[in-house]
Amino acid sequence: MADTEIQLARVALTLLAEPGTRAVHRLVARHGPRAALALALSGEIPDETARDAVAARLAAGDPRPAAEAALATAARLGARLVVPEDAEWPPGLAALEVVQLSVSDRRVDRELAPPLCMWVRGEWPLSDAFDRSVAIVGSRASTQYGEHVATDLAYGLAEREWTVVSGGAFGIDAAAHRGALAAGGLTIAVLACGIERAYPVANTALFDRIAETGLLITEWPPGADPLRPRFLIRNRVIAAATRGTILVEAAARSGATQTIRRAIAMRRPAMVVPGPVTSAMSVGCHEILRLHEPARLVANVSHVLEEVGRIGADLAPPLMGPQHPRDQLDDQATFLLESLPRRGTISPDAAASRAGVDIRTALRKLTLLETLGFVVRREGGYALAPQPRRLPENDPP
Amino acid sequence: MADTEIQLARVALTLLAEPGTRAVHRLVARHGPRAALALALSGEIPDETARDAVAARLAAGDPRPAAEAALATAARLGARLVVPEDAEWPPGLAALEVVQLSVSDRRVDRELAPPLCMWVRGEWPLSDAFDRSVAIVGSRASTQYGEHVATDLAYGLAEREWTVVSGGAFGIDAAAHRGALAAGGLTIAVLACGIERAYPVANTALFDRIAETGLLITEWPPGADPLRPRFLIRNRVIAAATRGTILVEAAARSGATQTIRRAIAMRRPAMVVPGPVTSAMSVGCHEILRLHEPARLVANVSHVLEEVGRIGADLAPPLMGPQHPRDQLDDQATFLLESLPRRGTISPDAAASRAGVDIRTALRKLTLLETLGFVVRREGGYALAPQPRRLPENDPP
Repeated sequence: MADTEIQLARVALTLLAEPGTRAVHRLVARHGPRAALALALSGEIPDETARDAVAARLAAGDPRPAAEAALATAARLGARLVVPEDAEWPPGLAALEVVQLSVSDRRVDRELAPPLCMWVRGEWPLSDAFDRSVAIVGSRASTQYGEHVATDLAYGLAEREWTVVSGGAFGIDAAAHRGALAAGGLTIAVLACGIERAYPVANTALFDRIAETGLLITEWPPGADPLRPRFLIRNRVIAAATRGTILVEAAARSGATQTIRRAIAMRRPAMVVPGPVTSAMSVGCHEILRLHEPARLVANVSHVLEEVGRIGADLAPPLMGPQHPRDQLDDQATFLLESLPRRGTISPDAAASRAGVDIRTALRKLTLLETLGFVVRREGGYALAPQPRRLPENDPP
Repeated sequence: MADTEIQLARVALTLLAEPGTRAVHRLVARHGPRAALALALSGEIPDETARDAVAARLAAGDPRPAAEAALATAARLGARLVVPEDAEWPPGLAALEVVQLSVSDRRVDRELAPPLCMWVRGEWPLSDAFDRSVAIVGSRASTQYGEHVATDLAYGLAEREWTVVSGGAFGIDAAAHRGALAAGGLTIAVLACGIERAYPVANTALFDRIAETGLLITEWPPGADPLRPRFLIRNRVIAAATRGTILVEAAARSGATQTIRRAIAMRRPAMVVPGPVTSAMSVGCHEILRLHEPARLVANVSHVLEEVGRIGADLAPPLMGPQHPRDQLDDQATFLLESLPRRGTISPDAAASRAGVDIRTALRKLTLLETLGFVVRREGGYALAPQPRRLPENDPP
């Protein structure tokens, strides 16, 4: 585990600016966390942007006592702090160092730097837990359809030992966590507030179950409120730490579409479950599929594994439609079969003429059709068999 | 109109080989229809493939008497023959001369040549009717969802003066035709049998309604049976004659997915309506979207117009579903409106009874419909207004 000074410096810096602030992350990358904090406290940060970023909260006083209190609270709660200096820091988060979104004036679209630290509740080492992980995100105002699909995908992924990551919110998030738990799998909720804050409160029992077998993680120190912008700031972590993101139900401008756009920007598999076009909860999903070429439509776990799985290890079986005995007939046999009258018999000559095949072919194919049970020979001609028989078992499709 | 000899030759050649047969089409392209038929009758076709293609049916006798009979029957039925020599031949069909599908052994995938002729019931010149046309195809075993979407898309397209083309089958096809008819639009059913054969029989009334204001067309002469492979042969015409094809609901291996694959091969807009991943009727649609990059997800009429419309002429507003004046009507008003005869008047009593509402409600809703310009009062009853009026400007959708 990293030494306490590093931990303290990183927590203190997190208290000085919202997670994701690029200038602060750059400062830490350049000078290390302890020197970066010292520069901040002395008011002598060379970079003006970084200086401005921490100025307001610094004016409220030295952040170190609060950082120490946060670490003490976390210890009391059974939570731990994980920092990039630790071996278990998830490598996927490094993608946030370089990700850039198309021009946007919104802070949450510009300030996408990796977290400075992570508060964690649960036993699993972070990097192990995220190694084979897929995010499932979507609307809070989900429909039964969306919840069903999210639960089903999460169950299927957990069964195949993939970690299911989501945001712990109502609707799709909760359905995804529950699906993974139901399969006895590992699930991670990435929160947008202090680790001890069960938000939404109605999900308290769910959070406790997740922490028992999986992980609750957050960038914010104990006591931090779930402020609205924090959900959007948090989303970049969900997209970056996982191997791919699945979107299940989203209205036209929902936070969940933002998460998958982050995944696209980081060139991670961006998967979208479609839905009825008559549902407002499909609009965001369909727009992502329409407007973002890398976004891939997925309809089941096999499709997801095709995107995120290792070749060979996670094979997706090719599409199988229902097989009809008639599908195995070639064109000439099909035409002949179709040329038979619905009642009564037809001579091979007449059948050949109607089907447009020569008489030798007609006789050969009619014999085949008889063998397969499609036609019967009667009164010197051929008639449709009373009931088309299935192909013999030893004649596979 | 083309001269009778050309007509006769083309019909006779159609009788000798199933439509789409490349060798026969090439023969006609090289020698013209009359010389091509003469070569066939003399047994002296230079090209062996073409010789083989017509051999079987030629053995049954000279096709000219049957061709003459077919033309006479058509005339008696009020149908006409249109051939490529006619000005009204739809130009889109030329794409079939060059289209090639990835390797397949199936006859219907290889033999994609343009039709030799078209039997037509209805007043519209073919090329005019197909000029601004979109195909809507899908499963016969459709769900309420699919039928709703197909009807809605067809209604919206017809309202914007696009022709809706489909195959006249149960399910999605019928819903598409009905949607276009409900909007007072032009719709075309491309049949896979003789023009006089209402197939499926249960759609007889629908076919009659289509022929009244739109078109029934087919490559097969009067009397031809709707043999199974003919539906697949027919599909290439639906894809080629239209500006784009929309797929609404298809099981994993349905004929409708074949139609849209034809559209993709001809580089026509290939549009797919997604659906719930929990529905077997979505599987074919989603597979097309997953496996064929040119296929585009569409969720509403605006999306369709973006694909097939002329830039500037058919503007697609982002993320806005189309609003129909009818959408603002409640169920009772809609039922009453639907209960009105297409021609002539109906008494309020009769309308109430057909719509299944009480007479007081009927009178109130009919007054509303009159105010909105959907119906007019005439001879003590109500009649459909000549042209559905837009809602008043100050009553936004």
